[in-house]
Amino acid sequence: MPPEKTLRRHALSIFRAALRAANPEHAVEAALALLPLNRYRRIFVVGAGKASAAMAHAAESVLGARITAGSINTKDGHLARLRRIELNESSHPVPDQRGVDGARRIAAIASSAAQDDLVICLISGGASALLPLPAAPITLSQKQQTTRLLLACGATIHELNAVRKHLSAIKGGQLARLAAPATVLSLLLSDVVGDPLDVIGSGPTAPDSSTFQTAWDVVCKYALQSKLPPAVRSHLQSGLAGGIPDTPKSGDPCFRRTANRIVGSNRIAVDACAARAKALGYRPMVLSTTIEGETRDVAAMHAAIAREVVASRRPARPPLCLISGGETTVTIKGNGLGGRNQEFALAAALALEGVPGVLVFSAGTDGTDGPTPAAGAMADGATVARAAALNLPAAAFLARNDSYRLFAPLGDLVTTGPTGTNVMDIRLLLIR
Amino acid sequence: MPPEKTLRRHALSIFRAALRAANPEHAVEAALALLPLNRYRRIFVVGAGKASAAMAHAAESVLGARITAGSINTKDGHLARLRRIELNESSHPVPDQRGVDGARRIAAIASSAAQDDLVICLISGGASALLPLPAAPITLSQKQQTTRLLLACGATIHELNAVRKHLSAIKGGQLARLAAPATVLSLLLSDVVGDPLDVIGSGPTAPDSSTFQTAWDVVCKYALQSKLPPAVRSHLQSGLAGGIPDTPKSGDPCFRRTANRIVGSNRIAVDACAARAKALGYRPMVLSTTIEGETRDVAAMHAAIAREVVASRRPARPPLCLISGGETTVTIKGNGLGGRNQEFALAAALALEGVPGVLVFSAGTDGTDGPTPAAGAMADGATVARAAALNLPAAAFLARNDSYRLFAPLGDLVTTGPTGTNVMDIRLLLIR
Repeated sequence: MPPEKTLRRHALSIFRAALRAANPEHAVEAALALLPLNRYRRIFVVGAGKASAAMAHAAESVLGARITAGSINTKDGHLARLRRIELNESSHPVPDQRGVDGARRIAAIASSAAQDDLVICLISGGASALLPLPAAPITLSQKQQTTRLLLACGATIHELNAVRKHLSAIKGGQLARLAAPATVLSLLLSDVVGDPLDVIGSGPTAPDSSTFQTAWDVVCKYALQSKLPPAVRSHLQSGLAGGIPDTPKSGDPCFRRTANRIVGSNRIAVDACAARAKALGYRPMVLSTTIEGETRDVAAMHAAIAREVVASRRPARPPLCLISGGETTVTIKGNGLGGRNQEFALAAALALEGVPGVLVFSAGTDGTDGPTPAAGAMADGATVARAAALNLPAAAFLARNDSYRLFAPLGDLVTTGPTGTNVMDIRLLLIR
Repeated sequence: MPPEKTLRRHALSIFRAALRAANPEHAVEAALALLPLNRYRRIFVVGAGKASAAMAHAAESVLGARITAGSINTKDGHLARLRRIELNESSHPVPDQRGVDGARRIAAIASSAAQDDLVICLISGGASALLPLPAAPITLSQKQQTTRLLLACGATIHELNAVRKHLSAIKGGQLARLAAPATVLSLLLSDVVGDPLDVIGSGPTAPDSSTFQTAWDVVCKYALQSKLPPAVRSHLQSGLAGGIPDTPKSGDPCFRRTANRIVGSNRIAVDACAARAKALGYRPMVLSTTIEGETRDVAAMHAAIAREVVASRRPARPPLCLISGGETTVTIKGNGLGGRNQEFALAAALALEGVPGVLVFSAGTDGTDGPTPAAGAMADGATVARAAALNLPAAAFLARNDSYRLFAPLGDLVTTGPTGTNVMDIRLLLIR
């Protein structure tokens, strides 16, 4: 029966295990360590994403002089010291010409690979924006204008992706087609719920299930036919008429020697939490790694499960560590300062007011939570009373989405600094 | 590995087990069967609630001629054939004079009980409105006016209850005080999340933690001092000055021989579900009996757990029956027809589209769900596609809260008719 302070120390220790498991350098090193290098004549490294520099650094440390050439697109300031792989800084989340130039170089390297060669592709969060290569003659600004038109109509992310993949020369499996007949090994750090290969970084090496017809149907659904830039419209119509090859589908020969491997993900991080919790003496129980939805309702349901454990030792007996992953959303109603993880902790604190022996922890694996310097926060059954003693009414802070200003004076923020990775959020409920 | 049809049959069978466990007649019979009747000189039966007639009927069938006298308040039309206990029909949810007359009779019977007597008190959902007894000289209409004033200011249910208990002559433990020094056995059918004794039926036989000061603080918080009916204001101020005894607190001598026993509740119903699921070959896992929150988010989290089971056999291996209780809310956004249980099934169906081997079930134990003739609905990974084939776009139906009009044509409604009980909702996810 560890006291409350120990629960907090344990939660931090369990979260650190998640960060280690999601570390992009460790993940790439482990994935490449057992590669049968002598099977390949030349090895190329390409990729894009906010963690691509760290991933490329790991590739260099394992492969060293075996790397013939390489090029990756990274976000401004997200750097690493590389010797053989070119590093192209570019803009995120709005792509720019530097990103296009880098993507063209990456496409050229992939195209140069031959039958006996290996192309290692390193993809992490942000790759969609960091690997822009509009299909000629479409320009970057025409592609962006199309995106804005779709967003303004309320198109879903799936609809948006179907159109964008069909305006790209590299997304939706087309990087794998450029690299064929070389072997392609894509190592993916997933920041998408459920780890869908065709969504992470817009799936440059994964089969695409959408078609030119899908893309055109989206355009027609929102009646954008005449509003599209003419180059975009004529590209989609050529594709529809069979004048341009569609993105490669599952079963396409270009995927015969392509492997997509998730090396970092929320699931992998959650597994590491479960192992660490077990080592600390808790029964680990993973609820789900795909939790989305409005943060305060998700928090209330987590709290309801914790209350049930306290009241009736169900769904499992304490000492228990409930673990959940994914990424929730916050509908902003006030002008407060906070993030989804701090709001989760605050909403759970209200639902667990006065309940003894339960610690709530929620933090983002990227080390940031909303526009705050914290990664998340911790709370327990005494949080609301401790805040009230400081004249901080918890319900009012939650009502205006002001979780940061409540947890900061309580000293209950979780602060890690930038972690160099992003596999969404980790939520823990420790129950003794 | 039962096929989908079997999953549906099993879900209905598990729900029926919940209804049996929450049956008010069975519950009262079981609670009274072992009573040492020869210890008491006289036995009185009082009570209120929508199920009080059924509960009184059970009391008569066990106690028969041992009942000296009795009186219960029930909702119009919620009747049973009684021989010894008077049945007072009255208005719900807005109380009326018939309710006051009945409550006065109930108070008189309780007051007549002596040291060696037993007062059995039968409380079920609706008792707050069905047992109105304003403290003299406050009138029913003055009390109702006070309630309306508080509601209009946005007072919480806890604030409302603190004030109302202090305008009543019977709520907040005062029925137990009237009956002292007799033994009081309260049998409660709980329709409140978490089964708090002081909230169910406004706790006529339970210690009250609120005081006249609490009540007056609420009045001041909403600046209602001068807006209250004068009789209400002067009653609260007399109480504040010590001129009227406060509601009895925990430790008050009047509770020395008082027992409050929950004989029907969501937890009891959920336990019965778990036992039935186990008998049918499922691993039962109770998530929580206190789940509240916005229905579609709660549904999404249930679906996320089910997806995790399918993907990684966590938090437990199939065949699994996830069970949760409580009562969610729906923020109405459209002009559709439905209820929280049907909306739960619809939101879960969207979140589980295409996922095989998962059946979702949600229904109200009172047999009704919103203004529809159904108690709830069932759904699975094929529901969205089956609806689409009938030209019923599931997402659009959810957006306008129109779950009934989707499930009715699919034949996936759960229909039980009135069940005579109410222990909130039961949600099941069967995963094979």
